Amino acid sequence: MTVSSAPGKVYLFGEHAVVYGEPAVPCAIERRARVTVERRDDDRVRVNADDLTLDGFTVAWGGESDAPELNVPNNLVEAAMGYLDGAVEQARDAAEAPDAGLDISVESDIPLGAGLGSSAAVVVAAIDAAARELGTELGREALADRAFRVEHDVQDGQASRADTFCSTMGGAVRVQGDDRRQLDEVGNLPFVVGYDGGAGDTGELVAGVRELRDRHPFAADTVEAIGDLVWEGETLLQGEDTPLDELGQLMNFNHGLLSALGVSARSLDSMVWAAREAGAYGAKLTGAGGGGCIVVLDDSEGAKTALDYTPGCEEAFRAELDTDGVRRES
Amino acid sequence: MTVSSAPGKVYLFGEHAVVYGEPAVPCAIERRARVTVERRDDDRVRVNADDLTLDGFTVAWGGESDAPELNVPNNLVEAAMGYLDGAVEQARDAAEAPDAGLDISVESDIPLGAGLGSSAAVVVAAIDAAARELGTELGREALADRAFRVEHDVQDGQASRADTFCSTMGGAVRVQGDDRRQLDEVGNLPFVVGYDGGAGDTGELVAGVRELRDRHPFAADTVEAIGDLVWEGETLLQGEDTPLDELGQLMNFNHGLLSALGVSARSLDSMVWAAREAGAYGAKLTGAGGGGCIVVLDDSEGAKTALDYTPGCEEAFRAELDTDGVRRES
Repeated sequence: MTVSSAPGKVYLFGEHAVVYGEPAVPCAIERRARVTVERRDDDRVRVNADDLTLDGFTVAWGGESDAPELNVPNNLVEAAMGYLDGAVEQARDAAEAPDAGLDISVESDIPLGAGLGSSAAVVVAAIDAAARELGTELGREALADRAFRVEHDVQDGQASRADTFCSTMGGAVRVQGDDRRQLDEVGNLPFVVGYDGGAGDTGELVAGVRELRDRHPFAADTVEAIGDLVWEGETLLQGEDTPLDELGQLMNFNHGLLSALGVSARSLDSMVWAAREAGAYGAKLTGAGGGGCIVVLDDSEGAKTALDYTPGCEEAFRAELDTDGVRRES
Repeated sequence: MTVSSAPGKVYLFGEHAVVYGEPAVPCAIERRARVTVERRDDDRVRVNADDLTLDGFTVAWGGESDAPELNVPNNLVEAAMGYLDGAVEQARDAAEAPDAGLDISVESDIPLGAGLGSSAAVVVAAIDAAARELGTELGREALADRAFRVEHDVQDGQASRADTFCSTMGGAVRVQGDDRRQLDEVGNLPFVVGYDGGAGDTGELVAGVRELRDRHPFAADTVEAIGDLVWEGETLLQGEDTPLDELGQLMNFNHGLLSALGVSARSLDSMVWAAREAGAYGAKLTGAGGGGCIVVLDDSEGAKTALDYTPGCEEAFRAELDTDGVRRES
């Protein structure tokens, strides 16, 4: 039996603009998906994911039956199956064990579909655990690449490399086009995440930004302004004694530019203001927007407490920068 | 006795950026300040302004006594006195009647200090009424210029020509640097104003934007993006059958860029979302921000009703585009 875990992530800066070649800085956070894999005697794959939704689900496929046995709505199962099926395929390929049967158990404390990279964390941890269980240890670059291929397939070619790379490597990461690298010497970042319990439609949000950008030169300039802001943020992050107040100011600015591009939401703005007025250094939506999560920079209890009492905030939690990335659990 | 009235205004586009030479489009709205002026036999000036605040005030100065008689807090009286004293001085100068005594009565249904140009409307109406009462009719350009000089003096050189020009001319106005002109053939604009009952500190907000702009190239780009957006908005406004949905989209974008520049507020964002979710074409803060008013484009009852029930919105009212500007009341 092998257990691996991998962290979720927030976007400190740059979501949406990254689609157009601008840099972005996702950061791994100390909220993890844990995947337990045990080799079976047959060639079947059995997945148990009690924690992935409130109700949990169990699904089995492979072997003689083509149709999976399931006890939850189809689209959710299809998505989860897609990610785990892909992870199993990658691990089997890496281990050159195409018919290996596996029992897989998934636990996660990353809210699903909320822009925190839950699927990437599950895929990264699953490939890592399954490959190890089948006798192969993948290098991090190779693991990140295989995890990306899974997300790429499941998300119809729309996946970003940022999520899987960040979840594999941990820490603060810089992505721009095909260039991806960990940022060195980043100090502690005291994040708080606020979650409205919902999620935006990523495809629709990305399409909305594209339409604005294609149509209006000032919207294209806004996308570029985000890129310029990311450059400054990256410099601040890597200096000694990162000035949290200046970083927070850039987060606030980034949130405004994202609002201009039409991807904020009433619930997100409401949480952002609650955090700022509670004394946070800064706050912004993270991910595609339209609902989901905000990320806050705050080293006091203020923002977390304020969010706990903010109508529309379903959950708020501290989540420091995770510097480990994927790891084998003892 | 002479009665003149002049309208308040909202910024459809461009506040803050206009400080840096970008264009802006203020629009006069059908909310007016009315000033009644009657010549006195002596050289005193007596002002009655019951409507200017909830409590109203009366103040008299000139004649033998240097110290004004007053019954309200000093700073408010000083500001109001400054505007009306300046208006009287301009009217006396225009009429070549330096010692003319006047009884002045001010009524206004424009919320004070809320970014709706209440002081400009009072000054414009007061100069117009006082000059007429003293036997002189000022041309509109001359009136706007004299009103600007009053605001310029009272506001320590920080006043924009936009407010006094817009209040004098009426309609939608384009201002850029020293260039000011009415936009022709603008159709009806169904505005709704939401007011949070407060006001931001204009000087502090302008200084905050300046600091961001001086410090960060992306903030300077954001200011420029507002200017580019105003150009597009101006073009839409002057076409036949102004597409309200496109105009509203530009208002939303403008609001986001202003948010990025740090001049929105929790109450303003809350009202903006309430209006948008109620089906408005668009909504944005108007004026300096930090509190005060939002302007909404909506031809249904939706936004007004939603704002009536939005916590933090103290007052919401319809105010169509005013095309008259200053006028003598019968």
